[in-house]
Amino acid sequence: MTYAAGRHFLQIPGPTNVPDSVLRAMSAATIDHRGPDFQALGTELLRDVRPVFGTTGPVVMYPATGTGAWEAALVNTLNPGETVLCFETGHFATLWQEMAGRLGLRVDLVPGDWRHGADPAVVAERLAADTGRRIAAVCVVHNETSTGVTSRVAEIRAAMDAADHPALLLVDTISSLGSMDYRHDEWGVDVTVAGSQKGLMLPPGMSFNAISAKALERSRTATMPRTFWDWGPMLAANERGFFPYTPNTNLMYGLKEALRLLHDEGLENVFARHTRHAEATRAAVRAWGLEVLALDEREYSSALTAVLVPDDVDADKVRAVILDRFDMSLGAGLGRLAGRIFRIGHLGAFNDLTLAGTLAGVQMGLGLAGVPVAGSGLDAALERLQTD
Amino acid sequence: MTYAAGRHFLQIPGPTNVPDSVLRAMSAATIDHRGPDFQALGTELLRDVRPVFGTTGPVVMYPATGTGAWEAALVNTLNPGETVLCFETGHFATLWQEMAGRLGLRVDLVPGDWRHGADPAVVAERLAADTGRRIAAVCVVHNETSTGVTSRVAEIRAAMDAADHPALLLVDTISSLGSMDYRHDEWGVDVTVAGSQKGLMLPPGMSFNAISAKALERSRTATMPRTFWDWGPMLAANERGFFPYTPNTNLMYGLKEALRLLHDEGLENVFARHTRHAEATRAAVRAWGLEVLALDEREYSSALTAVLVPDDVDADKVRAVILDRFDMSLGAGLGRLAGRIFRIGHLGAFNDLTLAGTLAGVQMGLGLAGVPVAGSGLDAALERLQTD
Amino acid sequence: MTYAAGRHFLQIPGPTNVPDSVLRAMSAATIDHRGPDFQALGTELLRDVRPVFGTTGPVVMYPATGTGAWEAALVNTLNPGETVLCFETGHFATLWQEMAGRLGLRVDLVPGDWRHGADPAVVAERLAADTGRRIAAVCVVHNETSTGVTSRVAEIRAAMDAADHPALLLVDTISSLGSMDYRHDEWGVDVTVAGSQKGLMLPPGMSFNAISAKALERSRTATMPRTFWDWGPMLAANERGFFPYTPNTNLMYGLKEALRLLHDEGLENVFARHTRHAEATRAAVRAWGLEVLALDEREYSSALTAVLVPDDVDADKVRAVILDRFDMSLGAGLGRLAGRIFRIGHLGAFNDLTLAGTLAGVQMGLGLAGVPVAGSGLDAALERLQTD
Amino acid sequence: MTYAAGRHFLQIPGPTNVPDSVLRAMSAATIDHRGPDFQALGTELLRDVRPVFGTTGPVVMYPATGTGAWEAALVNTLNPGETVLCFETGHFATLWQEMAGRLGLRVDLVPGDWRHGADPAVVAERLAADTGRRIAAVCVVHNETSTGVTSRVAEIRAAMDAADHPALLLVDTISSLGSMDYRHDEWGVDVTVAGSQKGLMLPPGMSFNAISAKALERSRTATMPRTFWDWGPMLAANERGFFPYTPNTNLMYGLKEALRLLHDEGLENVFARHTRHAEATRAAVRAWGLEVLALDEREYSSALTAVLVPDDVDADKVRAVILDRFDMSLGAGLGRLAGRIFRIGHLGAFNDLTLAGTLAGVQMGLGLAGVPVAGSGLDAALERLQTD
Repeated sequence: MTYAAGRHFLQIPGPTNVPDSVLRAMSAATIDHRGPDFQALGTELLRDVRPVFGTTGPVVMYPATGTGAWEAALVNTLNPGETVLCFETGHFATLWQEMAGRLGLRVDLVPGDWRHGADPAVVAERLAADTGRRIAAVCVVHNETSTGVTSRVAEIRAAMDAADHPALLLVDTISSLGSMDYRHDEWGVDVTVAGSQKGLMLPPGMSFNAISAKALERSRTATMPRTFWDWGPMLAANERGFFPYTPNTNLMYGLKEALRLLHDEGLENVFARHTRHAEATRAAVRAWGLEVLALDEREYSSALTAVLVPDDVDADKVRAVILDRFDMSLGAGLGRLAGRIFRIGHLGAFNDLTLAGTLAGVQMGLGLAGVPVAGSGLDAALERLQTD
Repeated sequence: MTYAAGRHFLQIPGPTNVPDSVLRAMSAATIDHRGPDFQALGTELLRDVRPVFGTTGPVVMYPATGTGAWEAALVNTLNPGETVLCFETGHFATLWQEMAGRLGLRVDLVPGDWRHGADPAVVAERLAADTGRRIAAVCVVHNETSTGVTSRVAEIRAAMDAADHPALLLVDTISSLGSMDYRHDEWGVDVTVAGSQKGLMLPPGMSFNAISAKALERSRTATMPRTFWDWGPMLAANERGFFPYTPNTNLMYGLKEALRLLHDEGLENVFARHTRHAEATRAAVRAWGLEVLALDEREYSSALTAVLVPDDVDADKVRAVILDRFDMSLGAGLGRLAGRIFRIGHLGAFNDLTLAGTLAGVQMGLGLAGVPVAGSGLDAALERLQTD
Repeated sequence: MTYAAGRHFLQIPGPTNVPDSVLRAMSAATIDHRGPDFQALGTELLRDVRPVFGTTGPVVMYPATGTGAWEAALVNTLNPGETVLCFETGHFATLWQEMAGRLGLRVDLVPGDWRHGADPAVVAERLAADTGRRIAAVCVVHNETSTGVTSRVAEIRAAMDAADHPALLLVDTISSLGSMDYRHDEWGVDVTVAGSQKGLMLPPGMSFNAISAKALERSRTATMPRTFWDWGPMLAANERGFFPYTPNTNLMYGLKEALRLLHDEGLENVFARHTRHAEATRAAVRAWGLEVLALDEREYSSALTAVLVPDDVDADKVRAVILDRFDMSLGAGLGRLAGRIFRIGHLGAFNDLTLAGTLAGVQMGLGLAGVPVAGSGLDAALERLQTD
Repeated sequence: MTYAAGRHFLQIPGPTNVPDSVLRAMSAATIDHRGPDFQALGTELLRDVRPVFGTTGPVVMYPATGTGAWEAALVNTLNPGETVLCFETGHFATLWQEMAGRLGLRVDLVPGDWRHGADPAVVAERLAADTGRRIAAVCVVHNETSTGVTSRVAEIRAAMDAADHPALLLVDTISSLGSMDYRHDEWGVDVTVAGSQKGLMLPPGMSFNAISAKALERSRTATMPRTFWDWGPMLAANERGFFPYTPNTNLMYGLKEALRLLHDEGLENVFARHTRHAEATRAAVRAWGLEVLALDEREYSSALTAVLVPDDVDADKVRAVILDRFDMSLGAGLGRLAGRIFRIGHLGAFNDLTLAGTLAGVQMGLGLAGVPVAGSGLDAALERLQTD
């Protein structure tokens, strides 16, 4: 890697900037994963990670990246040939339902424009229509990393309850957990899928399933083949703080430190910080005269903001200028949004001045790429940041 | 964790002692996994890891621990209901064949005494008997971590060739790769399974499949459901140095440094060092008047030595004394060997004086646990170490 | 330390932000300071540090912070009771001449307004008047850390040459070395004093004397008592890469990495980067309607900018607001400038977006502290940064 | 540095092996040395370091290596031309009295054989003879790093008290502090000199003066020139947790962690551990048929053991063999002991198995170097270690 002076601005919507203290924690010597020190660590983490999910129930930690936790949510709860109701809210929602199909599930996919979340009314409608109770699970991405659009999970749950439908609710919180308010228990989610490399401020390599009693019950009879992802042996070993196979100990050291940081700041404060940064970022986008991809303000993401560029602009060129000139990485448009948007990550270990630097880089990059802007987005953002 | 003065002796057969420079490398800031710096890193690693496997073909790297790579080897190459020929050489071989069963494969399990490797003659016999070509794969654990017994892979390959049988040869090298001579291409292995946390001197969290052309061909039509472990999208993305989902970047930094260390020492020298340490360890065991678990000297492991304790001794008590008094972790007897053996890991980042300290701890621990020993194993080991 | 989300902005004019790779390098295991590995390291560093000073002569490295290197410059070259010509260019120049007095030297102090550097014309005048050749050394601070004002060393040298005066020229480059163009040999400096914690991007703990042949000659007969700081045994031991007493090995690891970074970027590029950031900062100050402390544009510092606040404002309150609200440390006014200025460090491991974040913090802090500003300094700075 | 597999054995008597957690602590980002976080750190350390010295009075911490603290002890308490009573107990005692001479003090040097400590009876005799009270200070090295011989400080103090002599007692504890029982207050020491890189388990770069009320009183009128080492401004700034010039912040992070480790283990336990390891080492030396340099068992060092080699052996060749073959650094004979001894450091972050590895390396090295040994020193050492 060529050296560029100073610190790289990693403002993709994850992996996020890992705090130095987390990196240092991770560089401690690996220990015996069958010994008493490990057991104490495992026990502590399996307990302390729960509040971040808003659950008092079990949270499984996989020594594997987030895509694996998607697979785990499906294979532990469903039977071959069952139907899942999915929503085309963006690139990752699309990938998840593709995964379901490849695993031998049937997918009812509700098409979408990638600018809205999953519609609770459509959930209600589809479930009502499902008189045969064919739908085994509803899969929702809480925060679409590819679009910066959220889905209103509590309302979806309410729609499911209103329909009195037995389907499970599976929710991907990979880019929201630890950054945005999330309540596994209160919202009645059955499986929450999460990863280490976003709001948890860790490098990638660990992923999670928070599990409701109902999901656990289903898993006992679910027949999709599974071994690595199987909750059964995992939960059994977790009872004593251990794992059924080699865990990734050093990331666990990092998780311990990350949980300490989240706890010290306070989850409420963490969420408020993300909200504030998202508001400042949208203020900047508007002052530039550009468009935020998310169309419904109830669905704004606090973790990232996707910015639409004018039709004649290639968003990837803007990103390339910014990377080259200002050593900042932004997220690319994915799938059908390729070249049409860039994504600003403002989640994880982040603060006002880093946001200011980030938006300064975007503003200068737009200028250098020849994108006409209406005014100083940065000043608009600072006005928001200065307010409270 | 309570502080004990000085450095813990982690002498289980993995995870092994991670060199400081690897831990430091891993603590660099996480980068954009879709950017040019990552691409350069990915390209380099995917190329440079091959010689460690003795292959010029593709090696897939999973952001998941080793058990996942076992699953990957099976689900990418086999069809539901197909038969695999397995050998009960120890605890991990047993787990692997159980996994195969749980995934819907049929297992022909050759029973074993956990003191011998897979017998090439039995391979020959079974394949010869398989006139219906029902056996789709032969699964062998190169180095049984639970017993310190190896299987002679080249001879097994020869037996398969002699039988002119189309079965694939799948080999687990989790605790041998990077410590013992291994030749994926030359020995005609179809899938080699490996992990990061042993001879590669990394923390756990990464695992590998080296893939022969024949295995790759099979994978194109193999019908076991797979997504996270699927070679197809992985190999496609790897072509450009990328991954189909989030890789675990920081472990990749570590791998880069670990490969540098292996290369600097020279793989031949690495293997010779392990052989020498294993010889010294066995010399110690014999001088103590104890028994090495492995019965056939052609099958001695260079990575670990399992030591049988007298019938009236609980090996776990010996281990507990050693952990308590000398801050050293040894491997426990697993499965049917529980309490009967302890395992000394002498692999990875290791040298003569650390081996001497290790054997000193064992010798004193045996004494403190009241196990009668015939003489100074340590002196016998030093004699070997001093020789060349 | 309480956790504040994200990264602290350390924008004092030193210690500066230490690159992660330097911190990692420093965390390698300490080695035998009398062994061959150390010798190779010492030899390399003693050679490679020279170009940063613009010298081909010896550079002494002290395992002590910068104030010690001030003392070393004096006690190695002067005799008790001799006179040094000093300039009251700021707080550190004042401290240095006080040190000279406490060491038993006589000080001719040219008063100053802390807004200008040492005046070459005054040097010329004083030396011309010194017909008795009483002045043994001229002491100049190249870059006054307390004011952001530089002295024109080359012109001072020219004045000394014109006066044909035998005095030594001693120059403090603690906050300029590695950030601003500096030429020990070409400018005829006799002793250059430097520290690790500014442009060299290291933590504090190491300091330097670059030594001319003339200074070395003087040191052989100079009679001020000295032991720790004595060049003699140091240079003798340095010949073989060693030190006459215990060196601070781990900072030397850091220096090796820091020199690599400076070399990779190229010193010319490093200097240009600092110049550019200083220009952008001054553009911001002017746009805010505030005053840069330095009055002579030939004497602007590229390493830091001191900003005068209006008479009725307490600069320390502004700093306190910024630290509290935006987690950024700025430099205080020192000595007679206490409460009148704040200092923005823009040196070391630094880049455009971090500067933007820094200036955003200042701009918001001024607003929150109720300091009226004329316009957006940040926009003015971005304009400069965007230009080239 | 060439890579040698596994961990280097750094068994010189300092710098010692730095615990990983200390190295990690030191790699935190440098902070503003004038800010509140630093103030909290400084206040804590200046308080918590005192118990290690056995004092409730002030301990000055220099951002410089130990030789500087020697100089500080002299220049803060003495006047030019005053006399110090010194003892030729070894290489470092010799260097310290040379330093005194170079600083303009007069030295009464009691010759010695480098195999005994300073004799309390001689102290008594010299002070009794000093009817003119010419002797201003008695300088003693508590633990001679070059010989492994200690001086009995409490008895020396008693001799001074019996003589009712006003001389100060200055004690070098560079290689004993934090490893051996030491009591600044109880033993009536006036200045205790210490360094970071031995029992404190830090890299080199920090040194200390613990100061009695009497020494402090003397310093107020002492006239030796001093600036960097001056206690006055240091103690004044320390009152608020700050320093009069740039401190070496990152080593202070390390000190915080090192003090935590010492406290967790308990100082009494730390001392007992060192005593035990020294006994085991001497048992090894005797079993080899070699001679411990220290002749008086009351003066054995717990921190290191110097071993005399037979007359026809070059100790440096033995060391070279051990470094080359076993990657272990041992201490060389210094000064008049060059080639006659090697020194085994067994202090700092150290434990039984590392000692066993160390002694194994020595034993094999002696064998390879052709030094005849009487028996297995290692077995003798293990016997001691196994006992309790």
